[in-house]
Amino acid sequence: MNKKLIIHLLGAILLIEALAMAPSLAISLLYGDGDWLALLLPMGILTLLGTPAWLMVRPEAGSNLRAREGFVTVALAWILLSLFGALPFVFSGVIPDYVGAVFEAVSGFTTTGATVLESFEGLPRGIMFWRSFTHWIGGMGVLVLTLALLPKMTGRTSHLMRAESPGPSFSKILPKLGDSAKILYLIYGALTLLEFVLLMVPGGMNAYDAAIHAMGTAGTGGFSNYGLSVGAFDSATVDIIITVFMVIFGMNFALLFRMLVGDWKSVWKSEELRWYLSIYLLSTLFISGMIAPRYGGFWTALRYGSFQTATIMSTTGYATANFDLWPQAVRMLLVILMFVGSCAGSTAGGIKVVRVALLCKIGRREIRRTFQPRKMQVVRFEGKGVEESMLMQVSSFLIVYVLLVMVGAFLISLQGAYDFTTNLTAAITVICNVGPGLGAVGPAGNFAGYNGFSKMVLSLLMLCGRLELFPILALFHPAIWKKG
Amino acid sequence: MNKKLIIHLLGAILLIEALAMAPSLAISLLYGDGDWLALLLPMGILTLLGTPAWLMVRPEAGSNLRAREGFVTVALAWILLSLFGALPFVFSGVIPDYVGAVFEAVSGFTTTGATVLESFEGLPRGIMFWRSFTHWIGGMGVLVLTLALLPKMTGRTSHLMRAESPGPSFSKILPKLGDSAKILYLIYGALTLLEFVLLMVPGGMNAYDAAIHAMGTAGTGGFSNYGLSVGAFDSATVDIIITVFMVIFGMNFALLFRMLVGDWKSVWKSEELRWYLSIYLLSTLFISGMIAPRYGGFWTALRYGSFQTATIMSTTGYATANFDLWPQAVRMLLVILMFVGSCAGSTAGGIKVVRVALLCKIGRREIRRTFQPRKMQVVRFEGKGVEESMLMQVSSFLIVYVLLVMVGAFLISLQGAYDFTTNLTAAITVICNVGPGLGAVGPAGNFAGYNGFSKMVLSLLMLCGRLELFPILALFHPAIWKKG
Repeated sequence: MNKKLIIHLLGAILLIEALAMAPSLAISLLYGDGDWLALLLPMGILTLLGTPAWLMVRPEAGSNLRAREGFVTVALAWILLSLFGALPFVFSGVIPDYVGAVFEAVSGFTTTGATVLESFEGLPRGIMFWRSFTHWIGGMGVLVLTLALLPKMTGRTSHLMRAESPGPSFSKILPKLGDSAKILYLIYGALTLLEFVLLMVPGGMNAYDAAIHAMGTAGTGGFSNYGLSVGAFDSATVDIIITVFMVIFGMNFALLFRMLVGDWKSVWKSEELRWYLSIYLLSTLFISGMIAPRYGGFWTALRYGSFQTATIMSTTGYATANFDLWPQAVRMLLVILMFVGSCAGSTAGGIKVVRVALLCKIGRREIRRTFQPRKMQVVRFEGKGVEESMLMQVSSFLIVYVLLVMVGAFLISLQGAYDFTTNLTAAITVICNVGPGLGAVGPAGNFAGYNGFSKMVLSLLMLCGRLELFPILALFHPAIWKKG
Repeated sequence: MNKKLIIHLLGAILLIEALAMAPSLAISLLYGDGDWLALLLPMGILTLLGTPAWLMVRPEAGSNLRAREGFVTVALAWILLSLFGALPFVFSGVIPDYVGAVFEAVSGFTTTGATVLESFEGLPRGIMFWRSFTHWIGGMGVLVLTLALLPKMTGRTSHLMRAESPGPSFSKILPKLGDSAKILYLIYGALTLLEFVLLMVPGGMNAYDAAIHAMGTAGTGGFSNYGLSVGAFDSATVDIIITVFMVIFGMNFALLFRMLVGDWKSVWKSEELRWYLSIYLLSTLFISGMIAPRYGGFWTALRYGSFQTATIMSTTGYATANFDLWPQAVRMLLVILMFVGSCAGSTAGGIKVVRVALLCKIGRREIRRTFQPRKMQVVRFEGKGVEESMLMQVSSFLIVYVLLVMVGAFLISLQGAYDFTTNLTAAITVICNVGPGLGAVGPAGNFAGYNGFSKMVLSLLMLCGRLELFPILALFHPAIWKKG
């Protein structure tokens, strides 16, 4: 383990975080809500700690990051970002308890959107901007990770994601990383800007609200600065704009790029996109039909149904209605859709549509293998046979996902404050990076009632979900810390 | 598809069912509760339908059962057994609605123990004996299946189960089947008889109650003839006897045989048994500790905790206390234990301990593979490396299990009568063949409130769980019905 290299990289990340707080500081100074010191102070701390780590511990010349170090760096980076990103919440008094503030920061960076805030009235705008900005950075971070920092992981899924595929070894992709990342960030930034503008005209939001909600959509995070979330605007135009952007941000960014350059042929050929849109449309129709009696007609129901399906599948977590009060079948379906999530290579969480599609195909193959045990059965995706090792990885992913949900739900049940529905859906919604669950953590509730231990468990689940489980879990594996 | 052979076999099964109703008819005549006609009539119908099917449609000489036909036969046999096994409930008026009666029969044969009965006072004893007798036959049936009728399936897991392993093809195992089955049935019968006697002395039950509860334990079913289940006896002796037998019936019968012949060395070497007992003991200690404040001390809590852990893990479903009122962490743990179930090669349901152990090992390997991607990692069980194809099958099993729970929970949610907790745990408890869930289907509740559609969904889930998913699911696969 090349510890010096890791410290060097983590130092850089702390400095980047200090820099990332600058826009929030500017907003704070602009509005004069008195929260500038709560942002400046963490920036100072980050600089003081980051600079020596970055400068003084220099990696040896020519030293290279191996897979093991890459994973440790990524996992520690996300943890450190959250630990320091929580400071503005504490210093401003918005979330005085540090564990709660860390939960909020983790929820921000992992683009989950679960909150411990119980009211949003009169909170300082610089801090609230930082809260939503973490979504936007988090969404970005995922794209970086997808492309670069986790070469082994993306290497495995790359041909499924149809991304500008990183090569099999870390050093090789570095030269290519620049171009691919630039294009993806350009799309990410441009789409955020476009939504920001549309939310103002014709959406009718002010610039601040539009920025908050555009960043929350882009990162598929879901933090709002209103207790009623997007419902506070009570505008069909806003609902439709955000719905469309949530669906877009749930798509593979490499596909978005192909759309932009007019390569529609390969877009239509994307099996994951077809699954994604089919699941989205069918669920929207079903949910809208089920809730139509409540909204006095199908079209109003469609507005709420399409929004809610998009917010859950894209794992954003905005709300325009309290779906916890909707019919039981809709509640159950929404929880299932949390697991599904959106496309790989997007900023969304969940198991991802490509994995769900493969899992369904694995299941179907196993059924067929029961009565045709000798016949060779190949699982095909996008017209090509998928390797058995890939299928095993996808299956392992589900296994660990299910185990984590169970362990997490059990650990937060120890507190005894909430019922089965709340605890189980809390564990599901955080690992899937959605935000709201059912019951006490429903769209009308929040996570404030969980104690420190539960908040730490939930924070770990959010990080596991965001980093596709393994980097965080690897930290707990003794072998990763062994010499060599 | 050799349809004639299938019809011939199904005819035989109907005749066996007619025969299986004879003891209940005898009980009915003995007690004179007036339910003899409700048993005699189905016996007549079964004989009238079974005899011509068996006799008139003779299979061609030398025709052999292939895997495909074996599966179809098994699946249809269990469905037919339930459809006709429901008749005594309808004819006696105990469960006038046929769908509810089928649910009860499926619940009996699959040794689930979920009931639609709302009160047990004054029900005719012949019918109630039949209800519990289906558990005992169901438990037997599972042993037959394990050994014989599903060679492909058991072939896959046989070396894990350490059973007298069936060979790779159906025809080959027939000569060996006789011996192995005889030994297993002897153990099954002897243990049932031993429990029956112990429940009378020192348990203090009358012969009828002892028979009902011994059969319910042996099949790990859980039907009781009291609304309070085993709690009705309010006897520590009864609780302890049933606890011990539930733990025993959750063990691999091949291991029980080895114990009997004194081959303790291979018993201690069984990794599945070690996992099973460890999970059981740790869960018992945790649950007893958590409920101790309610029961005024650890020892009383241990009595209830050890019973409840055994009844859930062995997927029996008896109750001595309403665990739905226990602390949240206990409720969550019990639901997780439903999934775990007991050992393969036992009469219990659930995913089975051996699969859970392998799933945990697959998960751990995947974590390690993250940072050591090039290192060959073999999953070991009982000291031997497990083949990748076996790991894929175990993973596929979990995938289909999870999908079925989700689909089932969604479908019964359509009714809208029950909340998330009830619907989800109802789906889980039936596919795991446990019996009670949480909420409205908790130990103090029943399944009577579900409508016909929901009951059919739940019945299918019970059959899927009992037959290890695939035979039932294969019926829905178009390819199984193709010629050839």
